Amino acid sequence: MSTIQTSLSEIADALRPAQRIAIAAHVRPDGDALGSVMGLALSLRAMGKTVYALLEDGVPLNLAFLPETVTILTPPYADFEVDVALALDTATHERVGEHTKAALARAPLLIDIDHHPTNPGYGHLNHVDGTQPAVGQIIYELLKAGGFPITDAVMQHLYTAISTDTGSFQYSSTNARTHHIAGEMLAAGLDSSRLAQLLYQTYPARRLQLLRAMLNEMDFRAEGRIASWQFTRALMDEVQVQPGDTEGMIDTLRMIDSVVTAVIFEEMADGKIRVSARSKDQRLDVSAVCGQFGGGGHRLASGARMKGPIQEAAETFLTALEHEVRRLA
Amino acid sequence: MSTIQTSLSEIADALRPAQRIAIAAHVRPDGDALGSVMGLALSLRAMGKTVYALLEDGVPLNLAFLPETVTILTPPYADFEVDVALALDTATHERVGEHTKAALARAPLLIDIDHHPTNPGYGHLNHVDGTQPAVGQIIYELLKAGGFPITDAVMQHLYTAISTDTGSFQYSSTNARTHHIAGEMLAAGLDSSRLAQLLYQTYPARRLQLLRAMLNEMDFRAEGRIASWQFTRALMDEVQVQPGDTEGMIDTLRMIDSVVTAVIFEEMADGKIRVSARSKDQRLDVSAVCGQFGGGGHRLASGARMKGPIQEAAETFLTALEHEVRRLA
Repeated sequence: MSTIQTSLSEIADALRPAQRIAIAAHVRPDGDALGSVMGLALSLRAMGKTVYALLEDGVPLNLAFLPETVTILTPPYADFEVDVALALDTATHERVGEHTKAALARAPLLIDIDHHPTNPGYGHLNHVDGTQPAVGQIIYELLKAGGFPITDAVMQHLYTAISTDTGSFQYSSTNARTHHIAGEMLAAGLDSSRLAQLLYQTYPARRLQLLRAMLNEMDFRAEGRIASWQFTRALMDEVQVQPGDTEGMIDTLRMIDSVVTAVIFEEMADGKIRVSARSKDQRLDVSAVCGQFGGGGHRLASGARMKGPIQEAAETFLTALEHEVRRLA
Repeated sequence: MSTIQTSLSEIADALRPAQRIAIAAHVRPDGDALGSVMGLALSLRAMGKTVYALLEDGVPLNLAFLPETVTILTPPYADFEVDVALALDTATHERVGEHTKAALARAPLLIDIDHHPTNPGYGHLNHVDGTQPAVGQIIYELLKAGGFPITDAVMQHLYTAISTDTGSFQYSSTNARTHHIAGEMLAAGLDSSRLAQLLYQTYPARRLQLLRAMLNEMDFRAEGRIASWQFTRALMDEVQVQPGDTEGMIDTLRMIDSVVTAVIFEEMADGKIRVSARSKDQRLDVSAVCGQFGGGGHRLASGARMKGPIQEAAETFLTALEHEVRRLA
């Protein structure tokens, strides 16, 4: 293991002679994880290589429309051999998932490419660049550095990675190069509006049912500065919720102008309560509040798992959060 | 009047010697209208010119945070003199508004810059480019062509114009140059994420009240292919609705995967019912249905005004619409 930063052209050099390559990303994959894996995989396949694309939790429903996602493998993995393995967008080695970690270990060389600044560099080669908004953007630069093929299918995946991880070019991580890359893709013929339509402008009626429930049930405290919602198993069953249905719902709470912090409590199958918390104010560190309950994360986006029942967990957490909010002003 | 296309560098040449310039855009201004007017105005002011920025209906609340919007004039206009007048983003001469049209007529030279392909070219000089996603993008090219100043305040306005008129770079009108311009602005130091936050990620609690009402009251017909909602004066009064609060709400109906057409009926102060209709299917022409009631517009986005009461208008319109939807399949 080495934390010396390896350049993208050196990584391209390491990939060029490899014939069998495994590529994985983190559990519960999002657009950047899946798009980065498949963007790189499809470019390498276009070079004639055998590429195993591994996702411990498989393909989220809302991204299944992307090219060749049917070739993504999930555990249990067959007994294939690998020359080089890559872990993308995965801050710790464990977060590729147990089976996937074992499959990657078959390769003599592990390459770790990430944009999480906390990534310790667990690969034999590491390229960790916390200034990049998406690993998909790093993969695009890697393909450019190596002169690797950038087909329309590759662009669809990398555009999805970049667009979803920047909130459609809105987050502060978006940089000039992000837009220039998107511009290059459009100039090369990518139909980005079709992707945007499929990514952002289509959702099942289930999602509106959830949104309606949230708007009817949401709770405000501390003069509207705290917004929260309890997402119960009863509702999940009623709506027959699918992975991806709840994505971004906490943002709807967060966007209300009076709100400083938004929290969603979600009743898990095992009876535990998953807490997701967001802050809009740098002075309010939600990771510290989550830390009181064994969780953690970032200052403005954090989580924890608590004991049920959900009402008690919510009351306990919100009391602690309100204490912090009241210290602000 | 001439419909010969004038190049942007010729327009820049016409602006360079002018000392007193009036710039206007269409009534009920959106981000592209206001951003284009103020982006050009602030650049010309930075060159020492006297610039009158005219908006018949003034500044929408949600855009008032942008630089120098307090300098925008509304009728009745003072008796200022003008060397050159410009109408931006305004498909017909009348759509600048009555008072504004009269004020623009004080100038011996009218320049019409637009991206509506139907614009007949009502200026003495006309630059109408229907391939551009936003007039803000044309104004950026004009400033480049003329070597005019592009300050941070200018960029804030033009970025707002481009971002809002492309749905944050998602609409099919977005082109490679759109992204390259955004990239140039970010490279020049523009804080685009702050603008995105203010444009898209902040809304009053009123807006959630409206959304909740819509989700609770929306009506589906034709196996979920038609979604509609009746927005009553009673709710408007209860929520104390402000201009801009309802922007994009019809998209929430439209995005449901089963929905082919979405309609909102809005009870106006004069008792008339404003109908807004959207189609997701090129075969379903909502302007034809609106035409049956004296309205019109585009194939996929159209409107009409009907007689109240709202329930009867809705029933009449939806019956006609359902007739068309049932012909599809």
